[in-house]
Amino acid sequence: MLIREDYLLPAEPGTRAIAKALYEQVRRLPIVSPHGHTQAGWFARNEPFPDPAKLFVQPDHYVYRMLYSQGVSMEDLEIGQEEIKDPRKVWRIFASHYYLFRGTPTRIWLDYCFQELFGLQERLSEKTADTYFDVISTKLMTPEFLPRALYERFGMEVLATTDSPLSSLEDHKAIQRSGWKGRIVPTFRPDSVADPEFKGFASNIESLGGLTGEDTSTWTGYLNALRSARERFRSLGCTATDHGHPTAQTADLAPAEAARLFGEVLGGGADPATQELFRAQMLTEMARMSLEDGLVMQIHPGSVRNHNRKIFERYGRDTGADIPAPTNYVQALRPLLDAFGNEPGLSIILFTLDESTYSRELAPLAGHYPCLKLGPPWWFFDSPEGMTRFREAVTETAGFYNTVGFNDDTRAFLSIPARHDVARRMDCGFLARLVSDHRLEEDEAVELARALAYGLVKKAYRL
Amino acid sequence: MLIREDYLLPAEPGTRAIAKALYEQVRRLPIVSPHGHTQAGWFARNEPFPDPAKLFVQPDHYVYRMLYSQGVSMEDLEIGQEEIKDPRKVWRIFASHYYLFRGTPTRIWLDYCFQELFGLQERLSEKTADTYFDVISTKLMTPEFLPRALYERFGMEVLATTDSPLSSLEDHKAIQRSGWKGRIVPTFRPDSVADPEFKGFASNIESLGGLTGEDTSTWTGYLNALRSARERFRSLGCTATDHGHPTAQTADLAPAEAARLFGEVLGGGADPATQELFRAQMLTEMARMSLEDGLVMQIHPGSVRNHNRKIFERYGRDTGADIPAPTNYVQALRPLLDAFGNEPGLSIILFTLDESTYSRELAPLAGHYPCLKLGPPWWFFDSPEGMTRFREAVTETAGFYNTVGFNDDTRAFLSIPARHDVARRMDCGFLARLVSDHRLEEDEAVELARALAYGLVKKAYRL
Amino acid sequence: MLIREDYLLPAEPGTRAIAKALYEQVRRLPIVSPHGHTQAGWFARNEPFPDPAKLFVQPDHYVYRMLYSQGVSMEDLEIGQEEIKDPRKVWRIFASHYYLFRGTPTRIWLDYCFQELFGLQERLSEKTADTYFDVISTKLMTPEFLPRALYERFGMEVLATTDSPLSSLEDHKAIQRSGWKGRIVPTFRPDSVADPEFKGFASNIESLGGLTGEDTSTWTGYLNALRSARERFRSLGCTATDHGHPTAQTADLAPAEAARLFGEVLGGGADPATQELFRAQMLTEMARMSLEDGLVMQIHPGSVRNHNRKIFERYGRDTGADIPAPTNYVQALRPLLDAFGNEPGLSIILFTLDESTYSRELAPLAGHYPCLKLGPPWWFFDSPEGMTRFREAVTETAGFYNTVGFNDDTRAFLSIPARHDVARRMDCGFLARLVSDHRLEEDEAVELARALAYGLVKKAYRL
Repeated sequence: MLIREDYLLPAEPGTRAIAKALYEQVRRLPIVSPHGHTQAGWFARNEPFPDPAKLFVQPDHYVYRMLYSQGVSMEDLEIGQEEIKDPRKVWRIFASHYYLFRGTPTRIWLDYCFQELFGLQERLSEKTADTYFDVISTKLMTPEFLPRALYERFGMEVLATTDSPLSSLEDHKAIQRSGWKGRIVPTFRPDSVADPEFKGFASNIESLGGLTGEDTSTWTGYLNALRSARERFRSLGCTATDHGHPTAQTADLAPAEAARLFGEVLGGGADPATQELFRAQMLTEMARMSLEDGLVMQIHPGSVRNHNRKIFERYGRDTGADIPAPTNYVQALRPLLDAFGNEPGLSIILFTLDESTYSRELAPLAGHYPCLKLGPPWWFFDSPEGMTRFREAVTETAGFYNTVGFNDDTRAFLSIPARHDVARRMDCGFLARLVSDHRLEEDEAVELARALAYGLVKKAYRL
Repeated sequence: MLIREDYLLPAEPGTRAIAKALYEQVRRLPIVSPHGHTQAGWFARNEPFPDPAKLFVQPDHYVYRMLYSQGVSMEDLEIGQEEIKDPRKVWRIFASHYYLFRGTPTRIWLDYCFQELFGLQERLSEKTADTYFDVISTKLMTPEFLPRALYERFGMEVLATTDSPLSSLEDHKAIQRSGWKGRIVPTFRPDSVADPEFKGFASNIESLGGLTGEDTSTWTGYLNALRSARERFRSLGCTATDHGHPTAQTADLAPAEAARLFGEVLGGGADPATQELFRAQMLTEMARMSLEDGLVMQIHPGSVRNHNRKIFERYGRDTGADIPAPTNYVQALRPLLDAFGNEPGLSIILFTLDESTYSRELAPLAGHYPCLKLGPPWWFFDSPEGMTRFREAVTETAGFYNTVGFNDDTRAFLSIPARHDVARRMDCGFLARLVSDHRLEEDEAVELARALAYGLVKKAYRL
Repeated sequence: MLIREDYLLPAEPGTRAIAKALYEQVRRLPIVSPHGHTQAGWFARNEPFPDPAKLFVQPDHYVYRMLYSQGVSMEDLEIGQEEIKDPRKVWRIFASHYYLFRGTPTRIWLDYCFQELFGLQERLSEKTADTYFDVISTKLMTPEFLPRALYERFGMEVLATTDSPLSSLEDHKAIQRSGWKGRIVPTFRPDSVADPEFKGFASNIESLGGLTGEDTSTWTGYLNALRSARERFRSLGCTATDHGHPTAQTADLAPAEAARLFGEVLGGGADPATQELFRAQMLTEMARMSLEDGLVMQIHPGSVRNHNRKIFERYGRDTGADIPAPTNYVQALRPLLDAFGNEPGLSIILFTLDESTYSRELAPLAGHYPCLKLGPPWWFFDSPEGMTRFREAVTETAGFYNTVGFNDDTRAFLSIPARHDVARRMDCGFLARLVSDHRLEEDEAVELARALAYGLVKKAYRL
């Protein structure tokens, strides 16, 4: 067995029994996945997933980051190659280093996936590498493993992708045209046209103008183009935006000043402080538009992107060297909150990569401002320990109802059930401890377990 | 039952048994409350407390902050109204949102109070709202629920209020004159005359001059006036001062420079850095006076006050939008410690709203400087989890004897027994885990449990 | 009994049984101590250790810092005296304050030592002070308590000291000449010649020139002298360097710029920023030399040294008033990592005194860069709670194999077995919880327990 019936439930027998009873109430609830990085094209085309290496190793920076840290070269893993030349070789390297993942959530997700989806029961290692490769490869070719079949088998109710305002969303349209009942919705992520440091910023904005018929060389035209793009997303089911800035800084400049700033960053050559100010202003603009069109905002600041210069230069963005940095919310969000913090129609979900902010800034902010909710622990922290730290630091001040349930934030579609299962078990364990402490009665814990697994996320994301 | 016999004791049966034995040794010890925000007038006048809404909802920003965060309006709760027009309506709103407090310490305090004081046993909800309102309203009118009777029933030994140097302390005097045996002592909180950002700073200082017969337009006169005011407080039983600055910054300027600075801030229009420098200097001046008169200093920095501009403009200070910020102690306290850090007669109790400082700065500082002690987790962190984090992060470096026991810091008088009970249970649980780990023997744990519940606070506050 | 058979193992019986089985696999593994502050001279001369006060109280700032914080004077403890005039009096003061250490790791180390080495079974207190003094004094005079005998009895495989580049390493040479089989190796700690704030910096560099025959008044000569000194250390078994900077800042200046900077700091009077830049540059230079000669680098930033001005002025460096400060790694290490971060031959072990960096910066960095590993929790954090926080915050992102096992970092030779025993128990407890959670199988946990106790440290330090 790779995964045992009671995995991750509290060790103390009395508490485990409570947790297990709670878990039985939620384990089969539909999966709502409001934030992630899967590809709509998989569901549009519904073709078999590729080989195990292409599926599990190459796209997952959680996986190859760890291998790289222990001396496995990016070349040997064929990272960045469109086609993997020797997938079995890549898989064998991965298998023989699988012990590195002991104690990490990646290990849990993968084991869950190997056992529950592929029926594998012996641990992945150098010895079992080929069996794994063969079993997985074979099953991936069967109808039961096509993307739509998996979506249904996973019990998914909705799955959000993350998309550029420049995307045609052709795949989303194709899914809707196909008559398939799966609900795959886009998320509006404007970094490419809102962050002056993004590659091709100016030409992206020009393209945005082309797509929307607006004159994006002016501040007003640019804002209108964004409004128009948001509307296009909404028409395909989008309910949320997503903002991945280096900091949580916001600004609320007078329109003329904002227009001047836009001209400056569009012209290129703006210094880092000016670029930061523009991103800051854009968060406030996005909040203003959200008040108009109802899209929920997600803000997840605090990552120093592309920290490893050589890896970035050779392999590009998102290749595993994004490192968190200290993040301030209390001063940074103030301009936006001064403007819109008390608006009942606004909904902003805050994420962090700096756990020291949970109890110090995020829970107090979300426990006061009606527009603020806290996103789940993510990225480095969607682990059993990370989830425990989140609930323990946040609940006392913000309660449960200022949090938004779980999201998987993954590009690894096959790991989605595993990730939600981990979250459900950890939340049931946390609730069981409160029951065991006599801080909650069991009927309340059942209600909360269902809310954390299903109800809150639907409400928070307006799904 | 709202509160069970074993609530908050460790779940593991062996450890729970140890914890329970410890708890039996301390549960009935007198309550020493050296820091809080109750009103001496209650005990001076000894009149019935008002209705449930006025008592539990309106004054408690823990309560209405959570309601506001979930969309309940301040207007509907009648926050800021001198008289509540429809207390039953306010109570019903509170009751129907009571589920929001699940997992928070507020829930524990309130349930304890509802059950232990008012004999209520069914959970507060929309359904039971009226029963609660009627039972509480009726009991509040009985002699057993008058302030002095409750003080005695709670087993209180001393209760400190927090007072401005401008206060006449008339209520404290009236209590002493009355012959009642309760010990209600003032605490000297000079923010209104020591913080240039405080509303009416200059005129407050002028009033201070009037009260003390000193010429407070000069630095020397101002310091003498503070000395005189401290003496007046001491004559009414005061043993401590309290300083709520935005940061922990201290300064030790030469007298001429300090006098010049005083002139500058008194004249108005000083910039924020100058105002900060003045507050910094005043901490050192207060330490100097404490060396003379023996008052214990409490410093609790790190709150960004009145974060929500609109709420502040409409409802004023202390209406629930104070948000913690990162706080530095190691550099900030250095000027004061350079001057007085090794003085055996000085005693300074440090608090924090930035838990990352527990192990990094506060425990190492308190584990070295003889004048420093650590105050308990407070404000957002006086929760079971917050208390656990405090002991786990602080004990290894500072031990138990550089901490000062518990204080409730509350303006909700009826919650005082609940808060102390929570602290006693959590400390007994922590000690029981050390016994269970074979890091302490039981006789030591008993001694410590009594010290944490009673002995340390009396010693630290010189009560 | 001072120490019980199952001390520090998890309380929950099922988990304790797993932990105990793991611990039995590692409890008697050899001790590898790659980082500490014992004296090679003890083993060169192999003379009896002095009296109990000189051995346990006077040299250990963990011990006298706590006593000082509670009002015991440095004079009464005879801190800083070459000879203790009245060791029994010092010992009695210590004994009567021993209760202050309840809940601290110092208490565990001392109790372990008292019981396991000296056979003492009744708790140290005022009452037992003289018995302790007599028993310990007597045993210290016996052959079994000579330094070499203890080294062997402790089952040590290697012990690293920490040494200045100016040290003759005469004691290390004497040990090698003696034919004794113990392996005592030096560690290259260049602070005295690399940190412009170090007392005697310029003259230290001049001495370095004298020792190596290089002209250390030039940048090139200085670097060559360091190379030569490293080579001398290596010839005596040194495998690592050690860098105790106030921050983790690194720099990578062009050679001409670095040479100019060297001239500036050597001349004296450089401002703090220039001194910091020089230290930053020196970390990168040391990394460059490590690539050449294979010495492993240890970087442990973040301590504000000599915080207590009066104690420093009277008693000098390292007398207990070093206080941690917030520490940044993500930006600070970038220049060094840009230059050498992907070099397979480089190995850097990072330590911290700011635990908020574990999950935010250190684990993500070590979980990516092949040259980075994480040192164990140390100094204030080598406690049961500190070790738990480390594993819980680090493992999810960096796994176990990017950590380097345990080091004791102590100058208290007699406490070494106790410290390693605590680490082994805590690691076995952590692994047992993963087994209990069904996140690891027992065969994996055994492998990991052995790696954490023995294998990883040998590999990481190239011992």
